[in-house]
Order: sequence, then C-alpha cells, then structure tokens
Amino acid sequence: MKPERGPLRVALLGCGVVGTEVVRLLREQAADLAARVGAPLELAGIAVRRPDRVRAGVDRSLLTTDAQALVTRDDVDIVIEVIGGIEPARTLMLEAMKTGKSVISANKALLAEDGATLFAAAREYGSDLYYEASVAGAIPLLRPLRESLVGDHVHRVLGIVNGTTNYILDQMDTHGAGFNDALEEAQALGYAEADPTADVEGFDAAAKAAILAQLAFHTPVTAADVHREGITEVSAADVAGAKGMDCVVKLLAICERVPSEDGRNGRGVSVRVYPAMIPRSHPLASVREAYNAVFVEAESAGSLMFYGAGAGGAPTASAVLGDLVAVARNVVGGTPGPVEVTYAKLPVLPMGETVTRYYIQLDVADEAGVLATVAEAFAQHGVSIQAVRQVGLGEEAQLVVVTHRAPDAALSATVRGLRGLDIVREVASVMRVEGEE
Amino acid sequence: MKPERGPLRVALLGCGVVGTEVVRLLREQAADLAARVGAPLELAGIAVRRPDRVRAGVDRSLLTTDAQALVTRDDVDIVIEVIGGIEPARTLMLEAMKTGKSVISANKALLAEDGATLFAAAREYGSDLYYEASVAGAIPLLRPLRESLVGDHVHRVLGIVNGTTNYILDQMDTHGAGFNDALEEAQALGYAEADPTADVEGFDAAAKAAILAQLAFHTPVTAADVHREGITEVSAADVAGAKGMDCVVKLLAICERVPSEDGRNGRGVSVRVYPAMIPRSHPLASVREAYNAVFVEAESAGSLMFYGAGAGGAPTASAVLGDLVAVARNVVGGTPGPVEVTYAKLPVLPMGETVTRYYIQLDVADEAGVLATVAEAFAQHGVSIQAVRQVGLGEEAQLVVVTHRAPDAALSATVRGLRGLDIVREVASVMRVEGEE
Repeated sequence: MKPERGPLRVALLGCGVVGTEVVRLLREQAADLAARVGAPLELAGIAVRRPDRVRAGVDRSLLTTDAQALVTRDDVDIVIEVIGGIEPARTLMLEAMKTGKSVISANKALLAEDGATLFAAAREYGSDLYYEASVAGAIPLLRPLRESLVGDHVHRVLGIVNGTTNYILDQMDTHGAGFNDALEEAQALGYAEADPTADVEGFDAAAKAAILAQLAFHTPVTAADVHREGITEVSAADVAGAKGMDCVVKLLAICERVPSEDGRNGRGVSVRVYPAMIPRSHPLASVREAYNAVFVEAESAGSLMFYGAGAGGAPTASAVLGDLVAVARNVVGGTPGPVEVTYAKLPVLPMGETVTRYYIQLDVADEAGVLATVAEAFAQHGVSIQAVRQVGLGEEAQLVVVTHRAPDAALSATVRGLRGLDIVREVASVMRVEGEE
Repeated sequence: MKPERGPLRVALLGCGVVGTEVVRLLREQAADLAARVGAPLELAGIAVRRPDRVRAGVDRSLLTTDAQALVTRDDVDIVIEVIGGIEPARTLMLEAMKTGKSVISANKALLAEDGATLFAAAREYGSDLYYEASVAGAIPLLRPLRESLVGDHVHRVLGIVNGTTNYILDQMDTHGAGFNDALEEAQALGYAEADPTADVEGFDAAAKAAILAQLAFHTPVTAADVHREGITEVSAADVAGAKGMDCVVKLLAICERVPSEDGRNGRGVSVRVYPAMIPRSHPLASVREAYNAVFVEAESAGSLMFYGAGAGGAPTASAVLGDLVAVARNVVGGTPGPVEVTYAKLPVLPMGETVTRYYIQLDVADEAGVLATVAEAFAQHGVSIQAVRQVGLGEEAQLVVVTHRAPDAALSATVRGLRGLDIVREVASVMRVEGEE
C-alpha cells in the first residue's frame, strides 16, 4: 500500500504585498487546499531582504535572508517566487529546479526577458514552471491559452493588460482630462507609481505581450521583440478625435499571426503595444478604470474575452494559489505538467511589415486643391483612403483621414510625406485603429 | 530507454454538428496536436446510428453502429462522447472507463443529472473525465473553476449560459418586441429550435448551473436541485419596467454560497435559473445576441468575467480538442488529471431561503391611503422597501416598488398578499433584481 503522503513543503521568495497575501491564504485556506491537493501544504521558509520589517500575520521564525540556502533545502518541494526583477530571481529559480523543486512565479519581467532559459531548465530537470500571476493578475488567461485552446488555432490576442494606463485613458475619455492631470489623479489614488515609467511607456504591457504571444503561437518571443509605444503622447485632441469616430483610445497589447499566401501557420507573428482607437461597440471598449481584459480570436472557438482585476496583492495571490494547487497535485502524482512548447518558431516581424490602419488629423490651409494634394501623398505610398472628412473652415480647417489596412512602413512614410507638404500646417493627431477588420 | 510512444487512438461517439467538426480539427491540426501531446492522435472509429448519412470529410470506413464494441476495444485509448442525452451515453462512458479509457464529454444533461456516478467511476478506474464543452461552448470556464481558482474561495457565479434566450431577451430589449415575435425571429435565424422548450423554459441553463455550482463549491448538485423559471412569461412590460430602472432583463444562472453566521463555508448553496433585472452598468448587461458570459466573484480574485460564443459546432469542438490534448498528455505521462472533489457537501437550500430582491409593479386604485395599505402588506412579511414610485394617475395609476434583500419565501408571500388587496387591480410585473449588493 502507498504510504500516507506527508505535507508538501513550500518556500516563499519575497514577502511584500503579494507574498503576505500568499501567506494569509495558505493559512486561512489550509483545510480546503489540503483537500484539493491530497496533502497538506506547509510553509518551510520565507526569504526576505529585511527580516525586521513588520509583516502582519507572518510567523517571524520562518524568515531568512539566505534565499540561496532556502531554495536548495532538501525539505522543500515547491518554490514560489514573488521577488520580481531579473536577478537574483533567475538564479534562485534555476537553483530550485536543479535541486528538484517545482517553481511558481509571478515575474513577468524575467519570463519576458529570459523565459527560454527557465523553460529549458524545467525540461531538463523535469520541474513544473507555472506563472499565471505574471499576466493580468487573477484573470485565468495563461491556463486557457496553454491548455483549453491548445487544440485550436489562435489568430489574434488583443488585450488591455495594464491597469494604470487604462485608468488614465479612461479618465481622459470620461472627463476630457489631459494626460498629466489624469496621471496625477491616478498617482493620488495609488493606481500609478511615483515613477510611472514602466506603466505609461508600455514596458509592463510589452513584457506581458511577449508572454502571451509565446503561448498563443508556440514561438519564442522576448520583451525586446515587442514594438512598444507608451501613452505619454496621447493628447486630449486624440481622445476627442476618437470620440468623433465613435471610438475610444486604449493601450493595446496585440499579438497577431500574420498569414502567408500559401500556409496556415503564417509567415510570422506581430507583437506590439501602443495606444490605438477601438470602436465603442468592441467588448474591450467597455473595460473601465484599472480593469484588465484580453480578447482572443481563435479559428474554432471564435471570439473570447477574459476580464477582471489585473493587479493587486489579493488577485495576484489567488493566481499563485491556483498554480500552487496544480503544481502540488503534480508533485503528489509524481508527474510534472505540460512544459512550454515553442515548436512553431515563427519569426517576429518588424513593425514596418505589420498591417494596420491609421487615423490622421491634419491642420490644413483652407484653399482649393488641398484634398487632391493630400490624397496624392497617400497614393504615393500605396495607402488607400477609407474615409476623409473636413472639419472647420479657414484658419481652423482640419482634414480627418482614415486609411484602409496597409503596412505600417507605408503608413508612417505617408505621415512623413504629409509633414513635408506646404498646405499642411500641422499633423495634429496620428493614431492606429484596431479591433475591426 | 523508454520506447517511442505510438499513436494515441481516439474513439468518437456521435458524428453530428460537433462530431464532424472534431473529425475536421483532428485532421487539419494533426501536426500541431501531435507536437503538443507528444504523440500523434489517430481516429480508431466513429459510432453513429445512421452510417449511410452523408458526412463531409468523414472517412466512412471508420463508421460503426456498434458503439458498445467500439468503446471496449483494446486499441482505443480515449473516448469522446458527443451523442448527448442520458442513455446510451452513460452506459457507454462507464464501459469505456471500466476498460481503462479516459473520457471527454460535451453532455451537460448527463453530467447535471448523474455526474456523481461518472465521477465515482473515474476515481475507481483511474480514468480522466473532462467536460469543458458541456458548459458555454468554447469559453474556457470549467478549467478556470477546476484549476485556476482552486486556491481561492468562490462566492458567486452569475452567468448568461443560454444563447437562445439571450438572443430573445436582447431583441425584446433593443426593439421592444414581445416574447412570441422575438422567439419566431430566433427560430427563423436558427438561434432557436422548432421545439424551444429546453431553452426558453430554462432546462438547458439549469443543467449548466448544476455543473457550475458543483465545481465552484465542491459540493454535489444535480439539475433537479436547481430552482428553474423560464422566460415565456417575460412581457414587453417587464422589459420596459427594467429600462425605467436602468436595468436589462437577462436569463441568469446563479450559483451562490449562502453565508452562515459563524463559518466561512456557509450554511449551504443556492442554485437557480430565472429571468432577472441587472443594472446596465453590470458587465453582463452588455452581453448581446446569442453570446454567453459568466461572471465569477471570488474572495481573492475579485470579479472575473468570461465571454464568448456559447454554442455551435466549431466552438464546442474547440473545447473538446482542448480537453483531448490535456487527457492525451495525461495518458502519455501515465497519470490522470485531477478528479472532481465534492468534499464540501454543502446542502442545496430551497428557493424560499434564498435571499434576493424584488421589483414589483402594481396597477392600483388612485385613492388616498393606497401607499399605506401597500406598505403594510410588505411590512407584514418583514420585507423592507428600498424605493417606491407612483407612475400615472387615475385609471392608469401604477406603483413601482423595489425591495431590499429578503428571503424569497417572504417576498413571494408578499406578492400573494398584494394580489388579495382590493386597492390592487393587478400585479403587472414581478421580477427579481440581481447583480448588485
């Protein structure tokens, strides 16, 4: 007869906002977790930098500053990494796998920069590596992509994956606020950091886009592969222009399979983060405040959307616990779960080859022949105009142009061409349009 | 050295709309599926009742009318059941598990009526039993509940899980159509069956509610436990009344943990299906046409929503394939996935004990003292009024009353009391209000 399984021992790396929530859930949900895993879960130790800091509900005797010793201890089965950053997180996770532990991580930066090294180690040592919490907090997103849609063919992932920027853009849309005012309000409410660079410049969203693209297309993608534009240049005029188009401006993470002429797998993938207009009728348009949502288009499943709180200690800890139960069951059962497969190895295409649509607003001289001159600038680059509209007269005259789909290189060359025209006083707004065919 | 793994052999029971899509995906995605599973997947046979029927893209040499022989064949590893109904599906699935096969099913009726027998067999024979396709088509919902949220504590599941009724109610809301006109249109467009009973009377939604409640609360729930009301009685007046409240009428499947005074697990669960008003600001309110969406409230994860096409051959087949890859990986790895755990065994509370809110519209005599008499009828049953509003005058006088939360038994006793009052000419509309605290 199989002997009764003793407790599974868990080491926690980091004990900040997420870590303390993980400790709380492990204690409060202990009976439930044991029933679901088939064995009790027990905290073996918690690695922190400042053991003297007060952490409510955390047993101080478990604290250690020697993370290296903790992850290699023989009596540890599973390591949860919630330190963040590249090092020492990477070394600690690799050490843990090397000594037979399975690993759960919420570290989007590391997974987006060097996931390949971690996946290779997981394969080599037969370890589990789960990281649901790294993208969109508690929204179950990686597991559906990794597992539920694994028999389907994903065409596109379109997501709002950064709560800070969504809050700012939502304020700009709802109250007509400028970027700086909306940022200040977000900071006052705790939605934005004192240094908001990682959020407003799109670095956070780009890391998540890399992780999503890799899972959706089974192809290696790092954060450096992602074309990235932040929202600091989004003006009240851009937001008003979107309203005029019955659209809303959102910072989108877009992962797209680019079809080739002959094969279904496509000639590559396009992975990009930028502010873009989407129609108000699109399900993503109604995602308000700091919520996150990810829209997935798959061949058979059609359009799916996943919505929820994308950050915060409790939601992130919930995602960690979901992974912990899966990993613990695998440990009890003696077999690891599925390892990442990047067998498709599609190339990541440069932004210039990505096909998209532009909305362009021009301050123009109000004189005969303006429209012909502008239209010629588009035609020179092979860009076809879907709609053009004149707004205002005289000194206030503006042309609003929406293009058909065209390669981004042709579109940006067109904008450069427009800037060089005498009759164009200013290119007042340029924004991509997404979310429709 | 481990020998190279031969192909995994799959038996398909049923080859209708979903079955033919499964066959197509198995063929078209063969290379991808093999890469993800670690072994090729091969169709061993397809059990059908009418082998002479034309099925595009289906190899006729695989067809058999002897389902019993197919599921017990030694060269079959995995059985996919897309026949529907209770028998012979149940017997075939049990035979398959008994002879060592793992089973994937899209059969909501069977899982909701007698899931317990199937789960017991899966446990006894060490088989996998996966059934993502049984609820909400391709929307990954069961897997998040089974796995991602397993370390969390689900309070409530609130869902639109029937596309037909959502299409009808959406038409009534958008165009002011009556129920019968909207049903006819849904039938003309293929969204409703010639005999629409299973959809419009809520049987389909009730089966899905039972499956969701069981997973969310780890407690056995069958379709017979679900309080069920359909939408045939929903009138244009109800829909207009909802509009006046800035609400929309949706057929909701609601699974709720009912808290006790002393313990977190609650004194039971409430599982019910009925048309109810929800605020237009609620994420479920914007679910249009035949789409499905399920809103989950969990302690740590907060509010999550899952949205997509809830039915159709291709979406359902996508969910089956997702399960197939998971099960096939487990077969290759030699260990089954997690079996259902219903360790919590919470009682299902009768509808009368469920706490909810009522919207009541009364045609009343326009005379002094009416409001006092009506208010007294509520007070007699301990029901507290949140808001009351008079609409119209004289012969047209109406009172609109919205209650605070109260046990359903007290609310329905109040309505009976109102019907017996001389000054109440008619109770024009009674509808529950959900989606807010």
